[in-house]
Amino acid sequence: MITITDAADERLDDIRNLNHSDNRPDLPGGKGLVIAEGPLVVSRLVESRFPLRCIVGFPQKLQAYEEEYGLPEGIPVYAVDRETLAEAAGFDLHRGLLAAADRAPEPSLEELLANAQTLCVLEGVGDHENIGAIFRNAAGLGVDGVLFGNGCADPLYRRSVRVSMGHVLRTPFAHLPGTYTTWQRSLEELRERGFRLVSMTPGGDTTLAKAVEGADKVAILVGAEGPGLTEHAMRATDVRAVIPMAAGTDSLNVATSAAVAFYEVQRSRS
Amino acid sequence: MITITDAADERLDDIRNLNHSDNRPDLPGGKGLVIAEGPLVVSRLVESRFPLRCIVGFPQKLQAYEEEYGLPEGIPVYAVDRETLAEAAGFDLHRGLLAAADRAPEPSLEELLANAQTLCVLEGVGDHENIGAIFRNAAGLGVDGVLFGNGCADPLYRRSVRVSMGHVLRTPFAHLPGTYTTWQRSLEELRERGFRLVSMTPGGDTTLAKAVEGADKVAILVGAEGPGLTEHAMRATDVRAVIPMAAGTDSLNVATSAAVAFYEVQRSRS
Repeated sequence: MITITDAADERLDDIRNLNHSDNRPDLPGGKGLVIAEGPLVVSRLVESRFPLRCIVGFPQKLQAYEEEYGLPEGIPVYAVDRETLAEAAGFDLHRGLLAAADRAPEPSLEELLANAQTLCVLEGVGDHENIGAIFRNAAGLGVDGVLFGNGCADPLYRRSVRVSMGHVLRTPFAHLPGTYTTWQRSLEELRERGFRLVSMTPGGDTTLAKAVEGADKVAILVGAEGPGLTEHAMRATDVRAVIPMAAGTDSLNVATSAAVAFYEVQRSRS
Repeated sequence: MITITDAADERLDDIRNLNHSDNRPDLPGGKGLVIAEGPLVVSRLVESRFPLRCIVGFPQKLQAYEEEYGLPEGIPVYAVDRETLAEAAGFDLHRGLLAAADRAPEPSLEELLANAQTLCVLEGVGDHENIGAIFRNAAGLGVDGVLFGNGCADPLYRRSVRVSMGHVLRTPFAHLPGTYTTWQRSLEELRERGFRLVSMTPGGDTTLAKAVEGADKVAILVGAEGPGLTEHAMRATDVRAVIPMAAGTDSLNVATSAAVAFYEVQRSRS
């Protein structure tokens, strides 16, 4: 454990100006590191496929972490005080514990589909917290992998990682190739492997329960809050499923809809 | 429509320093007004049981609102520019449209239960956004009323109103009398009226689907994120229901759990 008292110390570069670099983690010039906050999520980053670079925290937070999880070998651990961390990170991190890791290549579609029975496919989900919540729900409700169609936000953005409770670091995901009007072709590969493709849409013509009934393998598609799935995407699926809603109400939040769908897939199999 | 250019104008007092007063809306000295933001939620406040006091917004936002919803009669409408609104409210309101209303008495338990078939009962839910999300989910998934046990945050706090998309203004709710260890006695009244009382808990011994199966009237109980329902509350219920979760994952967010439960109640009746 190395104590650092100078916020300008280059060993803190991985967690420097987090608000700034996180705003554009996938752009040229963005550092693009995976950042975990708090002991539970840090422990999940440590156990993940992402190559760990360092752990940074207040001395007492590092000690508590070591007691609960142990410290990984061969990884620098930097003890900092609250002011030093706030100055380096660019804002006050009251959790006082961070870890940084390099990004890692995604699994191939082949690998991801190999043993999967339930998938979630996202299109146009641009909100990092919704993506995080979808991963949290997916992990809890037995989804084996998440596929990204066009127009989604970065699941490894710090806020997605946090809201997912670290499950973006554990549940396999992959980006489907193609543009706004071509990525849907990849769905054909899912169908060939026996997946029933279910679009979640308030305009669906089949109840969710009927839509997933009897399916051995299911891929649940959800779209952006507001516009929802594109017609292009829905046309490439087998069924348009609706969660029956009370009259005069709004559709559910996208992560909530997804959770209900994942639940129903599980229930229908039990 | 009256144009106000002085942020200190007392006609803007209803929306003054919103961050400050909203932090303690139910304390002595707190103004305790119900605040709606954005056209959809403002329209729901206008139609609600809460006595409307004023509408405040940028001129173009007021005009757009008038075209879509019409302006209510006999209610002052104040046009302000962005700087004036930001100075009065205490922060920049990019939505540019607000309405304020007085609080109104809650319905009696008698009134609330009269025609209800599905209820949600909250205990210790202290997060305003979770409360808002629970109301949004409740409204969409056919819940007739929400009952507050001990230790919950204020559903009429501005952030709850916003996250609920205004459904806290529409779905009836009432606070059950009593303290931390006595409020549960009110649950007996629900049972006498034929409600099956279902505790949602990760430690439940019955699947959610079995727990609600065949029940004519159901009350779903959810507790705080983290600790969940107290043993006191669960003892007063008929069944402890679990949403089957994947091994090694965390429980769902409280509003998401509630949504899944509401969905299952609806599905089991269809």
